[in-house]
Amino acid sequence: MTNLEKSMESLIMVFHHYASEDKDGKTLNKKELKKLIQNELPSFLKSQKNANVVDSIMKDLDQNKDDKLDFEEFIPLVVGLSMACEKCYVLHEKKGTK
Amino acid sequence: MTNLEKSMESLIMVFHHYASEDKDGKTLNKKELKKLIQNELPSFLKSQKNANVVDSIMKDLDQNKDDKLDFEEFIPLVVGLSMACEKCYVLHEKKGTK
Repeated sequence: MTNLEKSMESLIMVFHHYASEDKDGKTLNKKELKKLIQNELPSFLKSQKNANVVDSIMKDLDQNKDDKLDFEEFIPLVVGLSMACEKCYVLHEKKGTK
Repeated sequence: MTNLEKSMESLIMVFHHYASEDKDGKTLNKKELKKLIQNELPSFLKSQKNANVVDSIMKDLDQNKDDKLDFEEFIPLVVGLSMACEKCYVLHEKKGTK
């Protein structure tokens, strides 16, 4: 498997690892989302000053307002964070080559 | 680093590995995109019957029509493939538990 394929597989496996904690194994409820963010995105969580960050994220991502996130609704969180990280990476690279 | 963080880092590193092949290290031109798809998404490439698949993908992703893809323009390819893979994973899991 290539690095990009591994990366996509890992995204799917992480989502399903947390989504499968309740009976409905295909979506994240708020408790599962909280656990995922606490365990998988600890640096991001620390950077957030809002105490209700998980509530805010759930509200932002839950497109159909069913209080659950399917993979499609979850993905924008990863995309947003990846884009932010990439911007930092580019800035850091620039500094490094100066 | 957590699995999700590693996965996001890997996305960024793969993009920049191919983007840095020409002078403009921050974007993929068509040649770099082709190389990325050939090396990193070989199974996807095999599944495509359209001989001009790289041209089609470039056209679809290149939002500002500058014949280059920045990370933000590239990400929808990964998202689309991940969502397709996740649907297969869920179907496969369903069969497994029957």
